[in-house]
Amino acid sequence: MSERLTLHPDRLLPVDPGVREIARRLYAEVADLPVISPHGHVPPAWLAQDLPFRDPASLLITPDHYVTRLMHASGVDLADLGVGRGELSEEDSRRAFRLLCEHWPIYRGTPMRLWLEQQLVEVFGVDVVPSAGTADAIYDMVADWIGRESSRPRALMDAFDIEFLATTDDPCDDLEHHRTLAEDPSFPRRVVPTLRPDKYLEPASATWVQDVDRLGEVAGQDTGMYAGWVAAMEERRAFFRQRGAVSTDHSHRDLGTEPLADGEAERLYAQARAGRITADDGDRLRRHMVHETFRMAADDGLTMTLHPAVYRNHHPGTLEAFGADVGADIPVSVEVTRALQPALSRFGTAAGLTVVVFTLDETIFSRELAPLAGFYPSVRIGVPWWFIDAPESIKRFRQAVTETAGYTRTSGFIDDTRAFLSIPARHDMARRMDCGFIAGQVAEHRLTEDEGMQIARYLVTDQPKEVFGL
Amino acid sequence: MSERLTLHPDRLLPVDPGVREIARRLYAEVADLPVISPHGHVPPAWLAQDLPFRDPASLLITPDHYVTRLMHASGVDLADLGVGRGELSEEDSRRAFRLLCEHWPIYRGTPMRLWLEQQLVEVFGVDVVPSAGTADAIYDMVADWIGRESSRPRALMDAFDIEFLATTDDPCDDLEHHRTLAEDPSFPRRVVPTLRPDKYLEPASATWVQDVDRLGEVAGQDTGMYAGWVAAMEERRAFFRQRGAVSTDHSHRDLGTEPLADGEAERLYAQARAGRITADDGDRLRRHMVHETFRMAADDGLTMTLHPAVYRNHHPGTLEAFGADVGADIPVSVEVTRALQPALSRFGTAAGLTVVVFTLDETIFSRELAPLAGFYPSVRIGVPWWFIDAPESIKRFRQAVTETAGYTRTSGFIDDTRAFLSIPARHDMARRMDCGFIAGQVAEHRLTEDEGMQIARYLVTDQPKEVFGL
Amino acid sequence: MSERLTLHPDRLLPVDPGVREIARRLYAEVADLPVISPHGHVPPAWLAQDLPFRDPASLLITPDHYVTRLMHASGVDLADLGVGRGELSEEDSRRAFRLLCEHWPIYRGTPMRLWLEQQLVEVFGVDVVPSAGTADAIYDMVADWIGRESSRPRALMDAFDIEFLATTDDPCDDLEHHRTLAEDPSFPRRVVPTLRPDKYLEPASATWVQDVDRLGEVAGQDTGMYAGWVAAMEERRAFFRQRGAVSTDHSHRDLGTEPLADGEAERLYAQARAGRITADDGDRLRRHMVHETFRMAADDGLTMTLHPAVYRNHHPGTLEAFGADVGADIPVSVEVTRALQPALSRFGTAAGLTVVVFTLDETIFSRELAPLAGFYPSVRIGVPWWFIDAPESIKRFRQAVTETAGYTRTSGFIDDTRAFLSIPARHDMARRMDCGFIAGQVAEHRLTEDEGMQIARYLVTDQPKEVFGL
Repeated sequence: MSERLTLHPDRLLPVDPGVREIARRLYAEVADLPVISPHGHVPPAWLAQDLPFRDPASLLITPDHYVTRLMHASGVDLADLGVGRGELSEEDSRRAFRLLCEHWPIYRGTPMRLWLEQQLVEVFGVDVVPSAGTADAIYDMVADWIGRESSRPRALMDAFDIEFLATTDDPCDDLEHHRTLAEDPSFPRRVVPTLRPDKYLEPASATWVQDVDRLGEVAGQDTGMYAGWVAAMEERRAFFRQRGAVSTDHSHRDLGTEPLADGEAERLYAQARAGRITADDGDRLRRHMVHETFRMAADDGLTMTLHPAVYRNHHPGTLEAFGADVGADIPVSVEVTRALQPALSRFGTAAGLTVVVFTLDETIFSRELAPLAGFYPSVRIGVPWWFIDAPESIKRFRQAVTETAGYTRTSGFIDDTRAFLSIPARHDMARRMDCGFIAGQVAEHRLTEDEGMQIARYLVTDQPKEVFGL
Repeated sequence: MSERLTLHPDRLLPVDPGVREIARRLYAEVADLPVISPHGHVPPAWLAQDLPFRDPASLLITPDHYVTRLMHASGVDLADLGVGRGELSEEDSRRAFRLLCEHWPIYRGTPMRLWLEQQLVEVFGVDVVPSAGTADAIYDMVADWIGRESSRPRALMDAFDIEFLATTDDPCDDLEHHRTLAEDPSFPRRVVPTLRPDKYLEPASATWVQDVDRLGEVAGQDTGMYAGWVAAMEERRAFFRQRGAVSTDHSHRDLGTEPLADGEAERLYAQARAGRITADDGDRLRRHMVHETFRMAADDGLTMTLHPAVYRNHHPGTLEAFGADVGADIPVSVEVTRALQPALSRFGTAAGLTVVVFTLDETIFSRELAPLAGFYPSVRIGVPWWFIDAPESIKRFRQAVTETAGYTRTSGFIDDTRAFLSIPARHDMARRMDCGFIAGQVAEHRLTEDEGMQIARYLVTDQPKEVFGL
Repeated sequence: MSERLTLHPDRLLPVDPGVREIARRLYAEVADLPVISPHGHVPPAWLAQDLPFRDPASLLITPDHYVTRLMHASGVDLADLGVGRGELSEEDSRRAFRLLCEHWPIYRGTPMRLWLEQQLVEVFGVDVVPSAGTADAIYDMVADWIGRESSRPRALMDAFDIEFLATTDDPCDDLEHHRTLAEDPSFPRRVVPTLRPDKYLEPASATWVQDVDRLGEVAGQDTGMYAGWVAAMEERRAFFRQRGAVSTDHSHRDLGTEPLADGEAERLYAQARAGRITADDGDRLRRHMVHETFRMAADDGLTMTLHPAVYRNHHPGTLEAFGADVGADIPVSVEVTRALQPALSRFGTAAGLTVVVFTLDETIFSRELAPLAGFYPSVRIGVPWWFIDAPESIKRFRQAVTETAGYTRTSGFIDDTRAFLSIPARHDMARRMDCGFIAGQVAEHRLTEDEGMQIARYLVTDQPKEVFGL
């Protein structure tokens, strides 16, 4: 007989009975508030076209590197999970799904397990634990769900009560999907683009010259010269803002913002255009341009989110066989205090600027981020992200930053996912953990319960609106 | 109606009822023990002259960068808080105080909130929560308190039961205030200076030549030559010791102690005197002199406290407008094992030496400091300081160092503050947190409760006396 | 009257009564399972010759740098503890033992205290707390115990139920003791060697040329040339495997695995043979050879354990007077993501490879190790080791790695000790802490209790067998 799968109403709340009581009351206040998702990777086409999802594996497994990477570590070939393959046959989808169910025990203790369970129970109505024996039946339930009208992306925006959703987009994107959504009176929910200019800012990358050529074309600027590069970026920012964007997103290996001396940017830019820039000079020119980006952001008010310090495609064989973003990106340490100083010294107190620094390197929470966000009005501490978007990590995050920066200097939760169906579960986890943390402070008489209630609501309502200017 | 402000007797004690019981008993043992404050920044003039405090804002806000920085991050202009302005008019003081009360919610979850609450209740007898509505009434209570005879600094030394207080002083200081205090039979409490030679040890700093000239004058040494620099520093140490000093304090960007080869110090010194030393060579000469300082300390027994790795005046505009020490100093990472090796290899087992390493970089607690202090008789682990002098941070500190170094290798609590009135609250917080940590160990049967009692008392009585040679 | 010494059955279990109940049930399942010890430093001669232990100090103090270092920090001369002295007279042994008992309070809060207590009570039957007053009586009990037939090493392997024990051995070792044990039908327990080639892989070390000459002789290879160096190492691996080895152990200052360009290894090898290699080039050649070691391991299946980033013999005076491994080794920070990339890019998904990365730098647990082990089938996260093999550290470890890597990507506990009698206590501590952590997850409804039971058993049975190919 199969084991029953249920969601305990107290899951993730603190174990001490007294604290749990408080946490329950706090959580009850925020459990059903709308979802604000100001940073993530849901493809806008899904919502613009409102097509049904394809198949269970393409829905729950293939695009979710959190899920596939741990099976890979356990010896499963990514090919057998359908990664990097496009459309999957029924047979292939079913096989991938079976592999997930068979490997269910490897997710014990991880958030992936909790997110998937919540989806299985709340979205698909599954009530058995995934296993080799239950895989096919669960597959059928998911496939059946996919076929329903109420499972279309737009209907889910309502079902999940997602009030605001930001996607992540290439500066050259025409944002037609976003226009479609904005102009459709039958779809009142807000879906906005986010400008992610990384590849146009890495002058030493192999594709940079052609990338920047394309950018120039789209922006109607001559990117043959340094000034055109800057102007093109400014043009795209203006276009994105016009299409509703509230932020830009940046993910380089370091956070450097050192500007170049007069004339140096032009000189390095010319070298880069000629394909003769060194890796070091490419970094210098990129840091200069990030500095310029702070200036632009202070001017136009687009919030900057920084997601630094990841070694992308750590395993080249996997990149070749399956492409990028399949779970082979590995964090490295990061430095903030010195790196951001040049930009913050100029723009750190500018009224228009908001910079959210996310990190996979927890050491900077108490050492650098909380002190910076506790002084600069423009700096916000990004909530836990990626590998550390998980219960214990969220606890460590609040423990590390609250004492220096309070509750008001963080960013509000972001789900940062392309796994659309997991969005409610991710936000729910964050709310539970924040309520648990606050409850602990109430129980230790550091806060009154009334204050705790205010904070719990603030973190899921006003804070993201403040930070992303909604 | 205003909300009532009270202090819960169990605040900050562990939430588990069984552990809290134990913690209460431990805390009861130490709650009323005298305060020993071997490192801080109270101006000695306050005590020597025993003048009344000025006004509520100058007492509680302006000098406390912990308090002002978070308002600054929330958009308050430091000018409106009276920072860097000297005397404040009644109107200005009241306005600054109102800003604090209006921004009360931003301190939720921070130690500043807890320190301020404890002062409001225990010192001023306030019983309403600060807010826009209560600001003026609270201001009046504080102003009234300031006017009383019993609110003078010396009376507070008694009221707070501060047994020992060290100030922080420039090597060129004549220490007249300390002499006044030491020679006054009506003031039996011990207030001693601490030598802080940082600026005389940074040969690449802009003011170094004139600083060292002045040092030479005061010390009666010719600092035109390297030998005179060393001799001048030795002379000032002897003078400080004579005036009661028990320690010297050092805060450079790194902890390097590499000595220079024969003749190299003289050569670099001459370059520095000529204003031609590079930043790197300035660092090398400084590290050499810090090495010499270990030698001096092993000889004369002055405890060395090291407070490294802060990027001072991160925001130049703020430095220009408001001066230093207004909340714009940001930590950077620090390395200890390699940095201290040259000095410890020579003096680490010397009987006379005590070196206390404080840190804002928590990563070194378990990785470097506890292992070092668990081997070298001269090395002590500084208790949490500055940004991490807070409940969760204190918990993490004990969790990180105790297993490698036990309880006997730490430094005893230091308040490190110029906010005189907050001293009792800071020590009280440390005592509560330490008792909570020990209580957890008792509850897990790692210690007996008797042992816990001994440890709790030791940490606030004998340990600071041992470490600072009192 | 002396204080009674007892072991509380719930020691180290979580304090919350509900969680403790669960933890007790989990612990009951694993408390008595056999010990698997796949990495440690017990001398194989002890078991091969089965001689009685010498004296109480030589048994419990002298060889245990955990114990001696903290007394050293407290001002005890290592000479008085018998460190580095060989045979001890009855008088000297008794004096060392007395010093330990007198210094008993310095171990409060440390695992050494818990390990020693468990040995005193469970092995020797001591029931009084060590102190100046009880030292001699306890000494006599230990001395009496040593004299018994049942206290011989082989009998203890049975008494402690050590199913598998790996020692650590020089590549030139003839492994005669291991052969003796393997061929003795009266000794059915498995004791295997581990190849530790460090010193043969540091071409810039002072003794390297003679070390490698010796290696060549033993391996029957001409190590005059680079190819012979590689071949010699391969030969020794084959020999160790034949004698039962399941792993090799590596402890360099960094984890670098960058291979050299064609011909460069030969060139640097020739320089090293001529004694003219720089420290930097020595590191480069070593990293190349470590890269080669990954290749060998992928071929022959010997698990690689990496124990990097320790500053050995930090205090030269202690090295001179007492030799190595006496407690003066201090950790430094370590980097993994970039360092292992060259080797993992080639061998990271090879079926035969298993690499366990241990660390004293906790910052890499969530930032680098868990992400790496959550992707690469070959990478395992080493459990806490050395300074962080302690209750709070074990808790932090599970909290840091489980959310990214689950329970299945860790290594299984290793005791890593030469203190033979402490092995059961160390494994017991790890089991208690793991059960406590799992119990917390059960109480927060992240796992069912059944799952918790499976995990608790897995961590002490199948996991080490998987990782070390037993």
